[in-house]
Amino acid sequence: MKGTVGELGEFGLIRELTSRLTTTPAVRLGPGDDAAVVAAPDRRVVASTDVLLEGRHFRRDWSTAYDVGRKAAAQNLADIAAMGAVPTALLLGLVVPAELHATWPTELMDGIRDECQVAGAAVVGGDVVRGETITVAITALGDLRNHEPVTRAGARPGDVVAVTGWLGWSAAGHAVLSRGFRSPRAFVEAHRRPEPPYHAGPAAAGLGATAMTDVSDGLVADLGHIAEASKVRIDLRSAALDIPSQMSDIGTAVGIDPLHWVLSGGEDHAIVATFPPDVKLPARWRVIGGVLNPSALPQVTVDGAPWKKAGWDHFGDIEDA
Amino acid sequence: MKGTVGELGEFGLIRELTSRLTTTPAVRLGPGDDAAVVAAPDRRVVASTDVLLEGRHFRRDWSTAYDVGRKAAAQNLADIAAMGAVPTALLLGLVVPAELHATWPTELMDGIRDECQVAGAAVVGGDVVRGETITVAITALGDLRNHEPVTRAGARPGDVVAVTGWLGWSAAGHAVLSRGFRSPRAFVEAHRRPEPPYHAGPAAAGLGATAMTDVSDGLVADLGHIAEASKVRIDLRSAALDIPSQMSDIGTAVGIDPLHWVLSGGEDHAIVATFPPDVKLPARWRVIGGVLNPSALPQVTVDGAPWKKAGWDHFGDIEDA
Repeated sequence: MKGTVGELGEFGLIRELTSRLTTTPAVRLGPGDDAAVVAAPDRRVVASTDVLLEGRHFRRDWSTAYDVGRKAAAQNLADIAAMGAVPTALLLGLVVPAELHATWPTELMDGIRDECQVAGAAVVGGDVVRGETITVAITALGDLRNHEPVTRAGARPGDVVAVTGWLGWSAAGHAVLSRGFRSPRAFVEAHRRPEPPYHAGPAAAGLGATAMTDVSDGLVADLGHIAEASKVRIDLRSAALDIPSQMSDIGTAVGIDPLHWVLSGGEDHAIVATFPPDVKLPARWRVIGGVLNPSALPQVTVDGAPWKKAGWDHFGDIEDA
Repeated sequence: MKGTVGELGEFGLIRELTSRLTTTPAVRLGPGDDAAVVAAPDRRVVASTDVLLEGRHFRRDWSTAYDVGRKAAAQNLADIAAMGAVPTALLLGLVVPAELHATWPTELMDGIRDECQVAGAAVVGGDVVRGETITVAITALGDLRNHEPVTRAGARPGDVVAVTGWLGWSAAGHAVLSRGFRSPRAFVEAHRRPEPPYHAGPAAAGLGATAMTDVSDGLVADLGHIAEASKVRIDLRSAALDIPSQMSDIGTAVGIDPLHWVLSGGEDHAIVATFPPDVKLPARWRVIGGVLNPSALPQVTVDGAPWKKAGWDHFGDIEDA
């Protein structure tokens, strides 16, 4: 395929994008009609939307189009898993400049497709329009398979807090990239392409999770949403938070306490949940704290004390690139 | 509410937006968690996504935020109805500049909410991010209520073609506005705020429609999609296309044949469908043509002859404002 998005035209680009897609049995009608049709055997559908902008959520000099696709899809599919649901489908709203080479959106679509396959889902529809800023708007759908949705509001004093997946790896990779480095690769890769533990969401629902979310804004910030919705305090034990030696090395090199990345770094899309104290968790879950009655302290504490920074506000100035 | 989007902050704006919403019994879990949960009693969910950009799909000097919200929602909800489904839910991905007054997104949300209510749906979730260009990415969901989805691929030679809703009103309103006028108001209003006949979609499915779509790009263009997918030719009878005298007057004033608006004008979101010849249609449907075997002629003809212009390509130059 040659040329720009403008040369290919709207319908040409849509043909290129849809020709790359794969399907699943849940897809009853894929792209090309007024709307898609997706199986919802539970008689309820779980749905979530995210918007990613070039310059704000990704940079073309840091990430390939394929990686942006993987990450954009992962972010949304993780939201579905964090409700305890199995991802089924994804829709893509895409804004691209006419002068962009057409390989960019097609490689983006390859990444979205492949991440959907990891999660068991498929791309079923979308829209493509021309505009100045590359914008990736994704909606993911999922099925609860007869579990009740696990919201943020069900944590009870006495519950344990447990996490599975990666914490702080994307933030450490971001620190490396923002200083002009390209290694250690494991962290750079984690920033470019998170690996949410999709299966853990429905599994946690089956294990009786009382509240659950994915870590998109940072562990303290996202547990803050659970604490607020559940009207509880959550205390984390820093000793239970695994900090890999390589992450400590990066922290030393750039002058940042790696615990900051683990507690405040977002975008790894780990799954964190609260469970009744007698829960038997599979091996890859780590208990990292407990749920307490609300107190005068902040809603999330670390070793019983306030933690300084609780994630970011996308409209704030701190994270402006 | 005072101040700009930036002053209000991401979470402040989300609070303002969600506080304005209404709900329906189909909404099992609304905004505020990782994802929403919506009833899908049919065990299938219908889903469609559209993206609207300021400058390309709407202009703030031509339309209020409220009208943009009504139109953006209508466009998506009509896609759901055109499958024969009942709209149930809508998700909003919104990009807004920090310096935009916060009343703009809140009035947009009022418009989206009100259009959802017309269609029987509710806003269940979304995402808000800061960016240069106002971007409205909407995903609508719907339920088939045990009807099979009516695709574009089922039209058969011998079927009749029928339409319900408005045709050419939005295009005539666009012609008025682009010449600096603000009246006749009925057409300007039709451009700002389409009124898709949502109920007609599921009703047509119940009447045995063989193919269906909503008119978003123009009658000839959208019937072209049905003709292509169904491998048939569709011939329209111009005498059956009602041209209101006021539309003829505007055509005379601006030097455009109003039949052009009726045949090529999009965005009114009329519902057009093919039916078996013995169908008994309700009063508000008009039979406007028939389905024929494919021929050497274009897939859509008017009075047996080719029609010059078949809608627009959003990447093309013709419609660049």
